Amino acid sequence: MSLLDRIRTCQIWDRARYRPFRVAGQSVGWVTGDVAQRLRGFPKLFRISDASVDLDPGLTSFEARSEAVAEALLALKAEGLVRGWRNEPYPVGTDFYAPPLMQMERAAVPLFGVRAYGVHINGFVGEGEDLKLWVGKRAANKQTAPGKLDHIVAGGQPMGLSLMENVIKESAEEAGMEAALARQARPVGLVSYITERSEGLRNDICFAYDIVLPDSFVPHNTDGEIESFSLWPIAEVRRRMAEREDFKFNVALVNIDFLIRHGHLSPDEPGYVDLAEGLRL
Amino acid sequence: MSLLDRIRTCQIWDRARYRPFRVAGQSVGWVTGDVAQRLRGFPKLFRISDASVDLDPGLTSFEARSEAVAEALLALKAEGLVRGWRNEPYPVGTDFYAPPLMQMERAAVPLFGVRAYGVHINGFVGEGEDLKLWVGKRAANKQTAPGKLDHIVAGGQPMGLSLMENVIKESAEEAGMEAALARQARPVGLVSYITERSEGLRNDICFAYDIVLPDSFVPHNTDGEIESFSLWPIAEVRRRMAEREDFKFNVALVNIDFLIRHGHLSPDEPGYVDLAEGLRL
Repeated sequence: MSLLDRIRTCQIWDRARYRPFRVAGQSVGWVTGDVAQRLRGFPKLFRISDASVDLDPGLTSFEARSEAVAEALLALKAEGLVRGWRNEPYPVGTDFYAPPLMQMERAAVPLFGVRAYGVHINGFVGEGEDLKLWVGKRAANKQTAPGKLDHIVAGGQPMGLSLMENVIKESAEEAGMEAALARQARPVGLVSYITERSEGLRNDICFAYDIVLPDSFVPHNTDGEIESFSLWPIAEVRRRMAEREDFKFNVALVNIDFLIRHGHLSPDEPGYVDLAEGLRL
Repeated sequence: MSLLDRIRTCQIWDRARYRPFRVAGQSVGWVTGDVAQRLRGFPKLFRISDASVDLDPGLTSFEARSEAVAEALLALKAEGLVRGWRNEPYPVGTDFYAPPLMQMERAAVPLFGVRAYGVHINGFVGEGEDLKLWVGKRAANKQTAPGKLDHIVAGGQPMGLSLMENVIKESAEEAGMEAALARQARPVGLVSYITERSEGLRNDICFAYDIVLPDSFVPHNTDGEIESFSLWPIAEVRRRMAEREDFKFNVALVNIDFLIRHGHLSPDEPGYVDLAEGLRL
């Protein structure tokens, strides 16, 4: 089952190449030696050793840390190290439920290997063999994964929203879904991984949701991020993911989780255990 | 959320106390120093070092290994080390899908920390807030977990059956379910853990199935293993698992997975990430 290749793509991490990134003495991410070297340009802000990179412990508040780091990131952006600036602050902390220790521009998050969160929504019609999944095709000018296949709705989790608020916001922007419908999305679990990508270390938790859509609903994108939508028979989603890499890397994982939860993969098939155990850290 | 306590009960494993148990040079389990000491009584059969316990490499077939080990286990049974003999051979190997290297009496499996497999079936009626789960109460004379709360159907995976064949067999024995109904059970994932219990190291994969039952169906036990069945509102299952330990340890995990998959826990609730990530190795 070459669906396993989709899992392995999300398990590329040589821990020995990384040292912890710590804020207020707490480990919140992972930094390579190369990145640590670039951070030496800010000797007041970062305490760098072979064992770790610590943010200046003299910065004792969320605001002070966030502002000082933002300034350094702007300099690193000018140097070309931080690419694809989005003006989207992400929380930085040890736990999704604890108050964040600081915030950091989304584009820099993979350089610091900071854990990021997102909502991933499987929108479908029908059931059993007749189940069809809505598949989006990302716009060719998207910063990340242009042209790749995607969920009907997915998005990173910004500061200050609950997950369900983000589901509703993203469902409106990406698929033109009204709040009353989006609210029917049901949380069904999560997928998590740490893996190296061109942008740095992706240390992510994808919260998964299912939504059964009315046959009459047709998604329309309002933010220019999705070029087109189409309804795929579930068997076709499975076949395509096994044969090709055209689903975005983490979308493939959430889709495999969907196949497992809905009984479209059988535990009597070789590879099932590795697939299921490979979906979460 | 003290559901997390149910997860922590399944994460009790001090790896430093164990050495690999190897068959044909392949690691298939974990043995404590105490057990290794007892195995020194069979110097021809087990090669024991501080680093590992190896089955005699001169035993080169499934049959030869199984017979030699069975003989030793009978002696250990007589000594009281192997308790609760069941006459149920379990496969021993590196992978669920590879041909097993040998078989071993079920009662001895935790002493060797060998990975064991089982099918766990969530049988329910209704949906959403009105969903009700069938809960079995184990007979007071059951060898393991007497009197504990259980699924409608669950059972260890023996040699020579597919998982679906086992689902059908166990559904008939434990709940009086006809094959045509049992076949509607849908595979929905797995739960896995390594944890110390009184019987030894439980190194298990529980394959989970959901079955939507007709309102008219009432389970009746045919093998004496379940004393009674009752229908529990899903909120009551959740509350009971958070407050008490009366669900069997691994049944609680499969039930938490059920709560997550059916949207009865919200990722906006603290603890959700640890619960979800704690359900699988």
